[in-house]
Amino acid sequence: MKGLFITFEGPDGAGKTTQIKKLAEYLENKGIPYIHTREPGGTRISDKIRSLILDPANEEMVNETEVLLYAASRSQHVKEKILPALNEGKIVLCDRFVDASIAYQGYGLGISVEQVKEINRFATGGLAADRSYLIDLPVEEGRNRMAARYETQTNGQGLDRIEQKHADYHQTVRQAFLKLAEENANRIQLINGNRNAEMIFEEIKEDFETFYINTFNKE
Amino acid sequence: MKGLFITFEGPDGAGKTTQIKKLAEYLENKGIPYIHTREPGGTRISDKIRSLILDPANEEMVNETEVLLYAASRSQHVKEKILPALNEGKIVLCDRFVDASIAYQGYGLGISVEQVKEINRFATGGLAADRSYLIDLPVEEGRNRMAARYETQTNGQGLDRIEQKHADYHQTVRQAFLKLAEENANRIQLINGNRNAEMIFEEIKEDFETFYINTFNKE
Repeated sequence: MKGLFITFEGPDGAGKTTQIKKLAEYLENKGIPYIHTREPGGTRISDKIRSLILDPANEEMVNETEVLLYAASRSQHVKEKILPALNEGKIVLCDRFVDASIAYQGYGLGISVEQVKEINRFATGGLAADRSYLIDLPVEEGRNRMAARYETQTNGQGLDRIEQKHADYHQTVRQAFLKLAEENANRIQLINGNRNAEMIFEEIKEDFETFYINTFNKE
Repeated sequence: MKGLFITFEGPDGAGKTTQIKKLAEYLENKGIPYIHTREPGGTRISDKIRSLILDPANEEMVNETEVLLYAASRSQHVKEKILPALNEGKIVLCDRFVDASIAYQGYGLGISVEQVKEINRFATGGLAADRSYLIDLPVEEGRNRMAARYETQTNGQGLDRIEQKHADYHQTVRQAFLKLAEENANRIQLINGNRNAEMIFEEIKEDFETFYINTFNKE
């Protein structure tokens, strides 16, 4: 049996981590084998690449380098961790995947979306998520939550290199995510993140259960 | 005036560094502005990526990640250092460039050469060397020189992650370089590296002078 590859997308502050933990707990209780991982990162080498990408000291990093580093981190993650888990029949819960690169680097940085997709096809060997939950949130709301999280109400101190980018960048990214959800309506479930965590999880759980049953044709 | 982009390719141990230094000295004496740089590396961020690529501890690195990290390092190098120097009319002397990725990662690791080229077109924005010197050497000779350099005649201790690969890998890489020289005979000058450094430099200097004069049409 092959597993299922489930990704969570959306801006920082949308509550992805909370929702993944809730779904992981649900799987745990059902006795369904799963792993929980994240991007960028997920393996030893990918985590080293993650540090390079997010370090605010690397302010001179050019856009192409950012795209290629995300892809380099991803290929290691896919080959070393995600594919083996899927081949063992596990559910893989992953915080961010290719959609994030298309939104943040493609649309966000103004790099050809086709090129970002092509580089990521090389990185993933064509692996795509089976189901994706896009937790949407107005940009201001997400930034307020992040600011509160870091206890800095001021100028972004404590935020990483990507989080520090200006509000209009994050606005572009949000619109890109919404466009992706529209274009991939069969895979991406658009979730309103501006509600309490319990309500959000009810929606995700319900969708996941239906998807799981339809996929494996069993209860 | 636009500068000239000159690359040096060939296996470790072929004498690339010695020849670049000699050509740099020649340009210095002529009062021709130049920079001397190398790959992977050449900038602060590229050097950090270089450490990831070459660290023998990263033995689990998958081939796709290696390709993407070389390209990530290269895009930073091109945008931050090579293009600005060329735009100032300088001669850029670079130890390794895209040919090395095609030979070592494409042919050497058995990755689609077209994909390696495509990823590198993205990384370089299409920048190609104006003239390249491929210093060719039998694999055994190169490895003996490297072993002597590290004072280890035994099992590769002291060599980096790429240098440690087996002799048949380096044999494939050598054949790939020779094929590239044949396919790009107008750009790549094939140089027999199995001679003393003075003789090799005479040949490079002579070719460079002709190429320089033909390009800028002046003495």
